Amino acid sequence: MTLTEVTRQITVPRPATADQAVLIVHGRDCTGIVSAVTSTLAEHGANIVSLDQYSDNPTGGEFFQRTVFQLDNSAATLPALEHDVAGRLADLGLEYRLSDRSVPKRVAIFASKSDNCLLDLLWRQRRGQLPMTVSMVISNHPDTADLTRSFGVPFFHVPSGGADKSAAEAEHLRLLRGNVDFVVLARYMQILSEGFVEEVGVPVINIHHSFLPAFIGAGPYAKAKQRGVKLVGATAHYVTADLDEGPIIEQDVVRVSHADTVEDLQRRGADVERAVLSRAVRWHAEDRVIRTGNHTIVFA
Amino acid sequence: MTLTEVTRQITVPRPATADQAVLIVHGRDCTGIVSAVTSTLAEHGANIVSLDQYSDNPTGGEFFQRTVFQLDNSAATLPALEHDVAGRLADLGLEYRLSDRSVPKRVAIFASKSDNCLLDLLWRQRRGQLPMTVSMVISNHPDTADLTRSFGVPFFHVPSGGADKSAAEAEHLRLLRGNVDFVVLARYMQILSEGFVEEVGVPVINIHHSFLPAFIGAGPYAKAKQRGVKLVGATAHYVTADLDEGPIIEQDVVRVSHADTVEDLQRRGADVERAVLSRAVRWHAEDRVIRTGNHTIVFA
Amino acid sequence: MTLTEVTRQITVPRPATADQAVLIVHGRDCTGIVSAVTSTLAEHGANIVSLDQYSDNPTGGEFFQRTVFQLDNSAATLPALEHDVAGRLADLGLEYRLSDRSVPKRVAIFASKSDNCLLDLLWRQRRGQLPMTVSMVISNHPDTADLTRSFGVPFFHVPSGGADKSAAEAEHLRLLRGNVDFVVLARYMQILSEGFVEEVGVPVINIHHSFLPAFIGAGPYAKAKQRGVKLVGATAHYVTADLDEGPIIEQDVVRVSHADTVEDLQRRGADVERAVLSRAVRWHAEDRVIRTGNHTIVFA
Amino acid sequence: MTLTEVTRQITVPRPATADQAVLIVHGRDCTGIVSAVTSTLAEHGANIVSLDQYSDNPTGGEFFQRTVFQLDNSAATLPALEHDVAGRLADLGLEYRLSDRSVPKRVAIFASKSDNCLLDLLWRQRRGQLPMTVSMVISNHPDTADLTRSFGVPFFHVPSGGADKSAAEAEHLRLLRGNVDFVVLARYMQILSEGFVEEVGVPVINIHHSFLPAFIGAGPYAKAKQRGVKLVGATAHYVTADLDEGPIIEQDVVRVSHADTVEDLQRRGADVERAVLSRAVRWHAEDRVIRTGNHTIVFA
Repeated sequence: MTLTEVTRQITVPRPATADQAVLIVHGRDCTGIVSAVTSTLAEHGANIVSLDQYSDNPTGGEFFQRTVFQLDNSAATLPALEHDVAGRLADLGLEYRLSDRSVPKRVAIFASKSDNCLLDLLWRQRRGQLPMTVSMVISNHPDTADLTRSFGVPFFHVPSGGADKSAAEAEHLRLLRGNVDFVVLARYMQILSEGFVEEVGVPVINIHHSFLPAFIGAGPYAKAKQRGVKLVGATAHYVTADLDEGPIIEQDVVRVSHADTVEDLQRRGADVERAVLSRAVRWHAEDRVIRTGNHTIVFA
Repeated sequence: MTLTEVTRQITVPRPATADQAVLIVHGRDCTGIVSAVTSTLAEHGANIVSLDQYSDNPTGGEFFQRTVFQLDNSAATLPALEHDVAGRLADLGLEYRLSDRSVPKRVAIFASKSDNCLLDLLWRQRRGQLPMTVSMVISNHPDTADLTRSFGVPFFHVPSGGADKSAAEAEHLRLLRGNVDFVVLARYMQILSEGFVEEVGVPVINIHHSFLPAFIGAGPYAKAKQRGVKLVGATAHYVTADLDEGPIIEQDVVRVSHADTVEDLQRRGADVERAVLSRAVRWHAEDRVIRTGNHTIVFA
Repeated sequence: MTLTEVTRQITVPRPATADQAVLIVHGRDCTGIVSAVTSTLAEHGANIVSLDQYSDNPTGGEFFQRTVFQLDNSAATLPALEHDVAGRLADLGLEYRLSDRSVPKRVAIFASKSDNCLLDLLWRQRRGQLPMTVSMVISNHPDTADLTRSFGVPFFHVPSGGADKSAAEAEHLRLLRGNVDFVVLARYMQILSEGFVEEVGVPVINIHHSFLPAFIGAGPYAKAKQRGVKLVGATAHYVTADLDEGPIIEQDVVRVSHADTVEDLQRRGADVERAVLSRAVRWHAEDRVIRTGNHTIVFA
Repeated sequence: MTLTEVTRQITVPRPATADQAVLIVHGRDCTGIVSAVTSTLAEHGANIVSLDQYSDNPTGGEFFQRTVFQLDNSAATLPALEHDVAGRLADLGLEYRLSDRSVPKRVAIFASKSDNCLLDLLWRQRRGQLPMTVSMVISNHPDTADLTRSFGVPFFHVPSGGADKSAAEAEHLRLLRGNVDFVVLARYMQILSEGFVEEVGVPVINIHHSFLPAFIGAGPYAKAKQRGVKLVGATAHYVTADLDEGPIIEQDVVRVSHADTVEDLQRRGADVERAVLSRAVRWHAEDRVIRTGNHTIVFA
């Protein structure tokens, strides 16, 4: 028996997510929410796979709950369950969101010349690490067309030169509308207009190549070198009208020293960017991230 | 306004744990457990502060749940709640453990000559970081007596020389019996007999100065130097009859290099030992650790 | 043989630093500097223990070298060696600093009410981890007097209330002048005047409880909670006229989550503060840190 | 000006390594080695770019030095410099190795079905992060042929089924001999015979998917799950006759929890494997790793 065979034998297969759903509940905390949700699920024969819950103040704060449950024959039985959940939660004044895990989210990735984050996302998606469908890659440069298409993913080149981005953004909206559930800016390097973020109507995740709020804006590695910091980092966040100020999903850092040049910082930072963005995208695709105010609750 | 005043103003006080309790539920997974537990709590007006849950297999595996809840006037009302919880869980064939958070756990710390881990635990306990009462420190050396007593904690010197530890262990048992809820070996450096671990009747937590299962036994830093590893670590685990083989609670590592001497490894490792042991002790004191087989479930 | 005895046997003693010296060289890079320095050392029979070197540009940038060497009977022989080194380096237009490692640096620690960083430094110094003499602790509160004196270190209470700090600072200067080689602000929480920093005439190291340049100023943990960051950190830096803008010596971070309160962030951050400050102090005491512009070169 | 343009402007180009060489010196420590080496370099007009040095005992231990230097017109002038260095070091009884940095090392990568580590190495090499030429990829499976060839790298499929590997290894030797300076096993999953390791005549680097010496042998993630560890890791090491016992070059770990399945551990571990292997390969390609006994000195 080879090592490969040994490894294969002892590998436990990951449970499929067919017949699973995710329920997010959010609102003013009060006694009995968990009980109301879980007993409604139990009445429908749903088995809880995982349950995470958080209240920012046990006496009357904001309440957040994420419940993954298994439901036999969910395609047929989920609507009745949702009807009852909706009624029960309306009585308690709570909002909810229900996602069928057998239907992967659809994503558009925006890239620029660099294939750093783009390749990482495409490769992880193909290996089954990201439960999502990459519907398209959009770039203002043609450089990553071949790479993208080698993964069987459509590539659209939308040039975006000059001060006026309105033509490019109109083309973006035309491609995206109705086709995607979220957008990932994988080092897109172009500023999106406030109107675009509103009109696109789905969450947009960006990777910023610094530990925000340090080194906001362009050229963070050069600024980090200039300030002499001993760590450089990356931040994945939702895009809002305020550039670099949206809710943070994930951050990480890596140690650097005086001997690292700006190019060294970029190389080390690029590894962190990839890792941070892929975690943020996975968590979003698995409905683990809840936005509230300018923060996120991450049930990772 | 000084910096101190500014800081004090914006510091949010941690909610007190008076009128809070922790319920641990454990057993064979089936549909409706979370619902059964939370609806029983809701019937008694308990408000859930946090709920963690884990099943090692959603279809019929082992199920674990930790629920922290707030209950007004808990001293008077907790017994009735426990009565109902016990009945409900017995029907489902599940075990439970209920802890009143207003009653801190009592701990005995065993130390040797070094004050490294001992001082860290005493200091954190005094700062309110460890919800426990240090009932006594027991050591086979008198070196840490003054330090211990400066924290208002009783110190008992129980010499333990020679091959026969039975007299020392009898003295240990006499001191501990009825007085403590768990024991921490803070670099005690003496092997406890199998009989002692059974007779003491409360959990015993040890800190091992390596990343177990690497470098089992004595002298792990010397072995790490000899093997040329690039990281050294520490492991906090429950003590069982099998030395260094008990359920792991927490582990961490720190980067080292060829240039570090064995003494450097000890110095760097000592920082990790302290950090790992204090996390394990806090999690145990907060009922966040559940033992199952030779593993732990840690709801940290 | 007990575990303790086993460990003691395999522990290699750290080489003493008697008869060792540290030479720091700094200036415009050119061919032959390392050769000039090391051949001068060799001519005096000095044996190089370690040599670190860095140039920010191999063709004509700034050059930095730290050399530790062993010299028999150094008390008698070091002056002649220094005379030759000084001449050789003057020819090359370079500056130098020579420290006899058998003479530990003298430090004053400024503290406030908290014993967090203070206790850590005193304890590490006593364990031989910090090659320095703690000459005194100065505080604007009497709270840590007993703790400090239990380590055999003088404690001076200098109240510092009100807007006018000049009386307090005059008292500080009176205590420090001629008595210390550097100052450590161990969470002192009072802003030092620009004049004080100039007049004190020795390096002053501060610990800031954030990952600078993020969250400059007061209340960084509250700000971090408000911004929803996923890591909190600490920064040790030299104090300059620009508050929180001095050269960074060391930084580190720790992971936090949405569930951490401001008090949790403070508790987790306090561990990082201690670790970062103690590393920075050790590196400074061992002449491993070279200031250049607003940066540091750290040969750690 | 777009963000891209801004970034491009402030990016400092990495200094080219043309006209640079690396000199490794190794042997019994004595007074004057650094001086002898650096003065010989200075006599030839070489400018030191970086110098690292380590002695495991300042009074008569093993001495190691790595010096990178710049030499104008090195193709013509390096031979004379080497002649003098060789003579000087022979007098001192020291060994040396001199590498011209303008000639990248040639590597063969062995892969199996997985493209995890393979893609990472090919991609980093193309981005200029690894100063080496990938001469060929050899695999016992055809799965990664297209991927490899898309990077312009030759791919050879050498089946290796059955107990007798001698035919496969003969084919490996035929392909490698004279063509490569080192070999990387990028999750090759086949055990190499002792004879092969000897005959191949160049260093062979392997990535083991655990924190060695924990979980030696096959199936480390399953073993880690079974032991309930809280961290999983990876180890890059030189291959010797003793499987999993060769000199360690680099290690790292990632935090896991009870909730991670074996497949989760594999996914998280795969990220660490890639990172650890790429660092080890880069350090080897840059002559930063010196083997001594069963250890490595890494001047990273």
